[in-house]
Amino acid sequence: MSAPRADDAVRFDGLAGLTQPRSVMVVGASTSPGTLGHTTVLNLLEHSDFSGEVYLVNPRGGELMGRPLYRSIGEVPAQGIDVALLLVPAESAIATLSACAAQGVRYAIVFTGGFAELGEAGRSVEAEMKALAERTGMRIYGPNCAGMTLLAPRLGLTFSTEFRNDGRSGALSRIGLVTQGGGLGRSLMQGDERGVRFSRWFSTGNEVDLDSADFIHWLAHDPGTDLICTVMEGIQDGARFVAAARAARRAGKPLIALKIGRSDFGKKAAQSHTASLAGEDVVNDAVFSQHGVIRVEDLDELLDVASLISRVGVRSLQRVCVYSSSGGAGVLSADKVGEAGLAMATLSDETVAEMAKHAPSYAALTNPVDLTTKALVDPELARRCLAPLFADPGVDVVLYPITSNYAASTEGLVRNMLDVARTGTKAFVPVWMSSRRGPAHELLVREGFAPIYSLRNATLALQRCSGYARQPDDDGDTAAMAADVTLAVGLPCNETQAKALLAQHGVRSPHEAQAASADEAAAQARRIGFPVALKLVADGVLHKSEIGGVALHLRDEQQVREAFDRILSSARRHQVPPQAIRGVLVSEMVTHGVEMLVGIHRDAVFGPVLSVGAGGVWVEVEADVARCHLPAGRAVLERALDKTRIARKLASHRGLPARDRAALIEAMQRMAALFLGLGEGVQSLEVNPLVVLDDGQGVVALDAVIE
Amino acid sequence: MSAPRADDAVRFDGLAGLTQPRSVMVVGASTSPGTLGHTTVLNLLEHSDFSGEVYLVNPRGGELMGRPLYRSIGEVPAQGIDVALLLVPAESAIATLSACAAQGVRYAIVFTGGFAELGEAGRSVEAEMKALAERTGMRIYGPNCAGMTLLAPRLGLTFSTEFRNDGRSGALSRIGLVTQGGGLGRSLMQGDERGVRFSRWFSTGNEVDLDSADFIHWLAHDPGTDLICTVMEGIQDGARFVAAARAARRAGKPLIALKIGRSDFGKKAAQSHTASLAGEDVVNDAVFSQHGVIRVEDLDELLDVASLISRVGVRSLQRVCVYSSSGGAGVLSADKVGEAGLAMATLSDETVAEMAKHAPSYAALTNPVDLTTKALVDPELARRCLAPLFADPGVDVVLYPITSNYAASTEGLVRNMLDVARTGTKAFVPVWMSSRRGPAHELLVREGFAPIYSLRNATLALQRCSGYARQPDDDGDTAAMAADVTLAVGLPCNETQAKALLAQHGVRSPHEAQAASADEAAAQARRIGFPVALKLVADGVLHKSEIGGVALHLRDEQQVREAFDRILSSARRHQVPPQAIRGVLVSEMVTHGVEMLVGIHRDAVFGPVLSVGAGGVWVEVEADVARCHLPAGRAVLERALDKTRIARKLASHRGLPARDRAALIEAMQRMAALFLGLGEGVQSLEVNPLVVLDDGQGVVALDAVIE
Repeated sequence: MSAPRADDAVRFDGLAGLTQPRSVMVVGASTSPGTLGHTTVLNLLEHSDFSGEVYLVNPRGGELMGRPLYRSIGEVPAQGIDVALLLVPAESAIATLSACAAQGVRYAIVFTGGFAELGEAGRSVEAEMKALAERTGMRIYGPNCAGMTLLAPRLGLTFSTEFRNDGRSGALSRIGLVTQGGGLGRSLMQGDERGVRFSRWFSTGNEVDLDSADFIHWLAHDPGTDLICTVMEGIQDGARFVAAARAARRAGKPLIALKIGRSDFGKKAAQSHTASLAGEDVVNDAVFSQHGVIRVEDLDELLDVASLISRVGVRSLQRVCVYSSSGGAGVLSADKVGEAGLAMATLSDETVAEMAKHAPSYAALTNPVDLTTKALVDPELARRCLAPLFADPGVDVVLYPITSNYAASTEGLVRNMLDVARTGTKAFVPVWMSSRRGPAHELLVREGFAPIYSLRNATLALQRCSGYARQPDDDGDTAAMAADVTLAVGLPCNETQAKALLAQHGVRSPHEAQAASADEAAAQARRIGFPVALKLVADGVLHKSEIGGVALHLRDEQQVREAFDRILSSARRHQVPPQAIRGVLVSEMVTHGVEMLVGIHRDAVFGPVLSVGAGGVWVEVEADVARCHLPAGRAVLERALDKTRIARKLASHRGLPARDRAALIEAMQRMAALFLGLGEGVQSLEVNPLVVLDDGQGVVALDAVIE
Repeated sequence: MSAPRADDAVRFDGLAGLTQPRSVMVVGASTSPGTLGHTTVLNLLEHSDFSGEVYLVNPRGGELMGRPLYRSIGEVPAQGIDVALLLVPAESAIATLSACAAQGVRYAIVFTGGFAELGEAGRSVEAEMKALAERTGMRIYGPNCAGMTLLAPRLGLTFSTEFRNDGRSGALSRIGLVTQGGGLGRSLMQGDERGVRFSRWFSTGNEVDLDSADFIHWLAHDPGTDLICTVMEGIQDGARFVAAARAARRAGKPLIALKIGRSDFGKKAAQSHTASLAGEDVVNDAVFSQHGVIRVEDLDELLDVASLISRVGVRSLQRVCVYSSSGGAGVLSADKVGEAGLAMATLSDETVAEMAKHAPSYAALTNPVDLTTKALVDPELARRCLAPLFADPGVDVVLYPITSNYAASTEGLVRNMLDVARTGTKAFVPVWMSSRRGPAHELLVREGFAPIYSLRNATLALQRCSGYARQPDDDGDTAAMAADVTLAVGLPCNETQAKALLAQHGVRSPHEAQAASADEAAAQARRIGFPVALKLVADGVLHKSEIGGVALHLRDEQQVREAFDRILSSARRHQVPPQAIRGVLVSEMVTHGVEMLVGIHRDAVFGPVLSVGAGGVWVEVEADVARCHLPAGRAVLERALDKTRIARKLASHRGLPARDRAALIEAMQRMAALFLGLGEGVQSLEVNPLVVLDDGQGVVALDAVIE
């Protein structure tokens, strides 16, 4: 049995009827200026380039902008309308949607709020909407959403008074935006002020039917989009999100995600806001990274990274040349370059020699480069001084910190820099460090060089872009991962059962035997060889060490007998029922090797997730665990392992032998296959510690739990 | 012998003659508008409120603004001038300074650049300047500096064309600024555009004589200053910096420092910029934290933290209430609150009940609070809804994310918020998240609520402020720390010598004995008890394990004999000279306990620094070490230890015993005392591993090096 690829099971709507409708109906159109129902009509009729049919519905009838206001949906003289926009009270939403479906409406956008975000009653109305969509085939967008803003060509299916100005301030960027909420989305749309102009924006609200994944998937296939940004509170369906992310990746379009509801406080806030299940953040991180999603942490960072990639494309921006006429800014830039894991580029001798021909004698011709403002006031001299820098093959990007705004003089310097930057092939990143904007800032915006407002943000953006460019493609190599297995025992499995199952699938445990008496334990210990460990075997007891159920490093029969008695009396003291106690396990002590943890659990959003990292009793203190999404090929498992500190302890070091890393990876694969084969009933499989022995000696599972 | 307190040895100039001069001479005054020599005179005569004597010097003579231009300093008809401003070519700087000193000038500000920042020749001129200052008593400020900008009362001893407008845009903040370079300083001064208006700015340049510490110290005593900010490339004299920082702390004035030259790239850039020794950054971090300096990482963060503390004072801002009319912004805020280690405040039942009386039914009355814009359009309703929030004793700060700028409507909402915020006692922090500024932004600036531009930056500022408020005062408890000791052997000490010295000072080593033959080693092992370890003893060999000089876990005489032979042949193979080999050490194996590292080294800037953390062979991989500056009291050592992850492994956990933490702290104290007693000749003392045994059993030094 092989686990299906997530993508195979996922189907997306083409959305042509929604994004290029031939007919639109506005339910709740209003004749009162300033109301949402009026603005929505204006947006469609006056501020969009929309030539299709428009039907307006208002129970009071009358007319608006020369068009009749139909008193009900039933009166509208058309069937199969592509899109209906609903501005109706929450309590009449279901009836209105039913009427739309009856008229054959294909897509209904429900702007109205007041559903799941307000509590249980709203959630049940949303469940009705979902059922209605499934029953009738009419797709629902929203509710509680700001709608759809397409800017090339212009189509505003939204009540926002801002739509009329959207995209008017300059050239559009080829960036699509998907946000659940309207507030953060609108904040990002105002990025136009710094030159980041999203050309499509989908605000999806509570996502009862169509969700963010649908629009990410649509943008992945949209010829007008090169880059996709999303702000998500929750991910309803992990498989759909992964499939959409993979589609974007296949299309060569970076997907930048701000996933909120990250900290415990944020998760709680997200639950009360859109009733979203925010998910385990460490899992989100692992899944995003594995499927090529660029995760950002704040709105400004989203704008920084999006505008950078939109301008320079996906490429490594690892080798940075800093150009600055402030020495301090040069030093601070070099700091931030180092902190972001980038490198200060080494300039070639030719570059330095060529600059030296034209630059003043006191110019700094190492990186950071400072040719002094004198070299920049004359455009021709600026070109001669700087052109070599923009041609140096050792430079990926020129970072240009602008510390202060001196009005016209800064504008002149920036204009000269831009003239040179345009002639070169390097990425050019101006950083506007002053709180004071001015003509130079306007020039940058106008010329499409969206300024970034701090060096930290600038180097972080370079890092995100470089990281994405470096990412391997992980397609393939995950098929037929699941093992063919049935679980013969009930859940949770006790240690013995779990180890037996693991041993069947190639992950061995220490030599061991169960003993029912102190004498028997001593005899088994003699057979296995000292030192040994003793562990309680009792139904329902999972964390033995916490109730005194474990004794280690026992060196002779006497110690074994004493430990046996101590463990049993401790179990009694902790109210373990006598009938639950199956005996005591006598085990080979594995004293050498590196103690790891390998666990797999079923995440509520994304399904099977494997964790690997530092094991033993200090798991929480070490906090050294990395994760990956299953099924996954060997390369993905290797990369997860390499994200941990403890992976470095597997190498030979200061007289310590190298450990059997290959056997660890194989055990991870075998455990993953076992877990996938066990099926949905099993929630987790964990081995801790999994001791990695010296190279060639394999690994040993010292403890295991299946739940 | 007791180590002197750093402060005792440090003397600071009062700087009254510099900051409140009665007479100023400008050497290099120019009649040509637009030149530095002209602007400097204008700044002093037209843009300052300066009523003292002014003398202008220019070799060409003539007059300027109705005043004579003296052809040389010798012609100036005054002695004992308080301040001379030098705008002269670099090559005539020394001669000009000598002439100033001869006239009895008290302070000379050298604006001119072209010294140490350009190389060796410049460094030697600076050495001459320094000698001249020491010889004559005339203090030198600079060179390569932007001078001094005092704004209340106005006194501009600077060539900057910006001075005329400095401090004119609104009320001054009571914040002093000290920056080495002019570029980053000017960038910060332009923070006036967002409402942060430094009232004093010292740009100190290459600091041949007066340094940043002098001005930090002066600001600590300046009645017009509540808060001090500094940007430093290098710290010339650690003791002076610490003394100035402690003076600020005693005066109750937070010191906020952006120390650049942090990463390796930054250090290199700093060296070529101002010839500053950037210092070890981890040491800077430890020293800053220990002496109450708030370290920030970028210019925007400096402005954020300074304006916040300047406005709300030093207090804990741990319990955050988020007020937002965007649900998404509420969730993102809660995320950032959690990530910054702050907490979402729990609102009292009374607060919620009172808000509920006035708020719309669909308002969110948990934290994040969203009363919807409806509750904010009417000022009276806004007051009733929000006042309870601003009075809730469980709230330290109200965070107000403003996602978008809707011009007048946003302005109205912000105005109503400000009216309520002013009536309460809570800190109020507006966050301007849009790229688009507007009237609401201007209103915030005008009303003194400097906006912060991202939620991450806002919560980081709250964290910095709260961390400072929480900091203990570490005065006292460091006297008489140094032990009375002389080092009888040469450096570096071999392991045996180092351990003997440690044992004399109360830090024991394992039971052990040296052996010259395999037979002798076996006999010693029998006496000590198995298992044992064998280690090579050889002059000049410090890292034994790397040349096969260590054998562990030897369980019987046979293993000991074999290991002895193996170690000696390995030493020969690694070219250890036979005459250097003193034998092999047979040691008790300490198999239980937590392996720590305790080291002390002499930092080039700050002197003795103690490191404590995870020891053993994986020190670099664990990277789990914290530091503190010596001398230090027990509380400081405890706090350093608590910064490490491994400190948590000293507690009892899942059946493992608690370890002897008290003995570890005592060993740290004893080692610190020993190091301080050994004096300047010793550069480092390191014990690794120092095994911390079970509680009550003490610690054991397994290896030690003194260099």
